[in-house]
Amino acid sequence: MTTKKILDFLDRHRTEGPCLVVDLEVVRKNYRTYKRALPRTRIHYAVKANPAPEVLALLVRLGASFDVASIREVEMALRAGASAGSISYGNTIKKEGDISRAHQLGIRQFAADCPEEVEKIARAAPGAQVFCRLLTDGAGAEWPLSRKFGCDPAVACDVMRHARRLGLDPCGLSFHVGSQQTDPFAWQRALEEVVRVFHVLAGDGIVIKCLNLGGGFPSRYLRDVPLAADYGREILRALRSRFGNAFPDTVIEPGRGLVGDAGAIRSEVVLISRKSGSDPLQWVYLDIGKFNGLAETMDEAIRYPITSRYGRGKAVPCILAGPTCDSVDVLYENTPCRLPHDLKIGDEVLIGGTGAYTATYASVGFNGFPPLEVHVV
Amino acid sequence: MTTKKILDFLDRHRTEGPCLVVDLEVVRKNYRTYKRALPRTRIHYAVKANPAPEVLALLVRLGASFDVASIREVEMALRAGASAGSISYGNTIKKEGDISRAHQLGIRQFAADCPEEVEKIARAAPGAQVFCRLLTDGAGAEWPLSRKFGCDPAVACDVMRHARRLGLDPCGLSFHVGSQQTDPFAWQRALEEVVRVFHVLAGDGIVIKCLNLGGGFPSRYLRDVPLAADYGREILRALRSRFGNAFPDTVIEPGRGLVGDAGAIRSEVVLISRKSGSDPLQWVYLDIGKFNGLAETMDEAIRYPITSRYGRGKAVPCILAGPTCDSVDVLYENTPCRLPHDLKIGDEVLIGGTGAYTATYASVGFNGFPPLEVHVV
Repeated sequence: MTTKKILDFLDRHRTEGPCLVVDLEVVRKNYRTYKRALPRTRIHYAVKANPAPEVLALLVRLGASFDVASIREVEMALRAGASAGSISYGNTIKKEGDISRAHQLGIRQFAADCPEEVEKIARAAPGAQVFCRLLTDGAGAEWPLSRKFGCDPAVACDVMRHARRLGLDPCGLSFHVGSQQTDPFAWQRALEEVVRVFHVLAGDGIVIKCLNLGGGFPSRYLRDVPLAADYGREILRALRSRFGNAFPDTVIEPGRGLVGDAGAIRSEVVLISRKSGSDPLQWVYLDIGKFNGLAETMDEAIRYPITSRYGRGKAVPCILAGPTCDSVDVLYENTPCRLPHDLKIGDEVLIGGTGAYTATYASVGFNGFPPLEVHVV
Repeated sequence: MTTKKILDFLDRHRTEGPCLVVDLEVVRKNYRTYKRALPRTRIHYAVKANPAPEVLALLVRLGASFDVASIREVEMALRAGASAGSISYGNTIKKEGDISRAHQLGIRQFAADCPEEVEKIARAAPGAQVFCRLLTDGAGAEWPLSRKFGCDPAVACDVMRHARRLGLDPCGLSFHVGSQQTDPFAWQRALEEVVRVFHVLAGDGIVIKCLNLGGGFPSRYLRDVPLAADYGREILRALRSRFGNAFPDTVIEPGRGLVGDAGAIRSEVVLISRKSGSDPLQWVYLDIGKFNGLAETMDEAIRYPITSRYGRGKAVPCILAGPTCDSVDVLYENTPCRLPHDLKIGDEVLIGGTGAYTATYASVGFNGFPPLEVHVV
């Protein structure tokens, strides 16, 4: 699944440590696939998944909008050429000073999930559009969804009434079904509650003009996932069954879905060993781990496909770990990963599907290991 | 527990985001306390806990040695004035190129836990001293100790014999009882196995001159921990019961124990809310979380004391979370933390005991939030 463009780049460029290479062609293809799956839906790219300037600039050219998590991400999107009107500040947790700065930069869409946040928005971004985020359960998602974001339907109605009272535009409802959501029906379940809130608010004279269906669209790692078309079909079916053909504007916020499979990391085998003579499994230590790019292996949540051009022998299960002196820097142990039995120290491995949530997740230099190097091709 | 020096600094310096302040006086006091607890033991500071140049320079002046995890940490220690002879490359997972560079810089002590690593050391650092790390169980440690490092006694004997065969100096055995180890008897259990290996090797004519007792010495967070003197007494008792009064040289590698309680982070309350009207607990969101400094709250492993000068009311349990759009960025939920019920958005909180494993653990900019700012006073 690693593209020829990435392999060619890696052949031409030697690096000392691990490096991530992102292929823009794959991002372009993914964007078009989602556009085709949901033609009338606006796509807000979740900048946090991979804020590389080249990725942002490509998506600007393709006509994408942007979902940002912080004032710095607002600035990154603007720098890449995005218009302020195409940026939605989707984090429900914002300092008032950051809302104010975003407003000065022209941002007009802000998320909230409690009346307290609405008050900040009213003071710092008078007249802005407010999206209220509802709490969902995240069943079917491979990356854990906590109760951190969103509120229950009663609070959501309060939030929107409060927004109207304070002169804001209570224009949208949003939810998120959980990252790497492998069940296309997840949106259907979440929409039930959203539609209830929609009708209660309509009774109050608050017309919801836009539904933000969030992200969660998966990337293919080790296992097959449903296609963008499957998600599109189920989401449209769910919307039609609730609203008929006159449903509100819709927005999706893919991050992983657009860039996950666009990247591959080259890493080097630093050590291969066994803990005891009777140890059935060997330990393979790479120069990349939880602290310099692969944080999403936490609890073995995301399972990257790992291949090697070296070692052509039979694949055997191996425990995989990173290079730091930290005990938790083990990638796959409960479910070992399969690598050629004749893999050797110094051999390279390719870790596929690493375009999202890797480079920016890397630590500034834990144990003295530098952050992940990134190349966009 | 946050010192007057730290509070005075914070009063004089306004920062926009969260910041860590480290008080060198506390580091000095901790170093002396450990020196007193184990007067004949050499102290190797585990640089990974906090590699701030000022901390390293102070420890050089106090006469400490250094345990490093990577070639960059070798360079940091040298830059702070450490002599090459005082640096031990304690990571058992090293690239051969890094061993070679360290050897060129004068480093002569390397750890290994398998014959494969010994071969790299023999090629890249001929004649160097080798410490073999044994696998221990880590019972009693609050930060999880995996099977990542160390080997069983039979492999350890092979490692040392192999080192001798390749012209290296098989001079030491090492082990680690797990970070934030709250049981001073943990060393006693681990030493049993080490002593067995010691005697087997003596039978082969390999004399172990040094025992590296590792780190694990705790820092005081929310709960009391035993004193350095307790650890010293139990370690000495364990050594004497095994070796009489003629025990080998010993080394300890405290990291957290020297710098943990020397630091405090100032953070700001960004939002306080409830998910529903019937929610018994409020959510408090800070401008610092798992991705910009508090990674050790993973699985709520390390529980920092959090206080506020604002809000003087009764303390109530709160769910505490960080500022990013990531669902896993929740600090304390299973066991909520207690904060004044009249704490307000915009108030400051002080997170104590954050001198270790915070600044370097921070991500390069996940969600656009910058790494943690550090000041040493």
